[in-house]
Amino acid sequence: MLKQDPALDRVFHALADPSRRSIVDRLSRGSASVSALAEPLPMSLPAVLQHLQVLEESGLVRTEKVGRVRTCRIEVAALRPAERWIHERRAGWERRLDRLGQYLTEEADD
Amino acid sequence: MLKQDPALDRVFHALADPSRRSIVDRLSRGSASVSALAEPLPMSLPAVLQHLQVLEESGLVRTEKVGRVRTCRIEVAALRPAERWIHERRAGWERRLDRLGQYLTEEADD
Repeated sequence: MLKQDPALDRVFHALADPSRRSIVDRLSRGSASVSALAEPLPMSLPAVLQHLQVLEESGLVRTEKVGRVRTCRIEVAALRPAERWIHERRAGWERRLDRLGQYLTEEADD
Repeated sequence: MLKQDPALDRVFHALADPSRRSIVDRLSRGSASVSALAEPLPMSLPAVLQHLQVLEESGLVRTEKVGRVRTCRIEVAALRPAERWIHERRAGWERRLDRLGQYLTEEADD
């Protein structure tokens, strides 16, 4: 049985690219226009727009056009399930190791 | 300037697939043979082996062959940078919102 979670697929896929992580990182420090996001990136504007589309589809970024300026902002709610997914597996495994260590210590004490 | 981190690319890419997340989830509860991992997955053994290869390349899973059995275990150290990356962006944004809220409250009190 395979647990499907297309939203998680899209968020992890969005974060698997350094340009998209750079955009999320920039937006985590405040909203920005598309041109401000594009400025430090070593690529064409159409390439940046493609990355933004992947980020919007993942729910990590929202954009809004006011007049001639499109402003982008981060949607941190979309980060939480991905953070939680990783955290639970890591913490679960570490608890398991702790219990094993405790068991071995008790065995050694006997 | 674009911060490259191929290891993070590979971990997020590995986690972007539900079959691979299912394998990581299973291994977070204990090591398992390839056939035990394949058993609940609705796909051929070669497809499972391809997913395992992506997971090994990401550093999330290690496999070891003893006799005729290949055993897989999770490598949680590879999860930590991904967890930390997400956590820092989310927490950074939330701190920023808190400061904004505090500022607005103080303005209202004046």
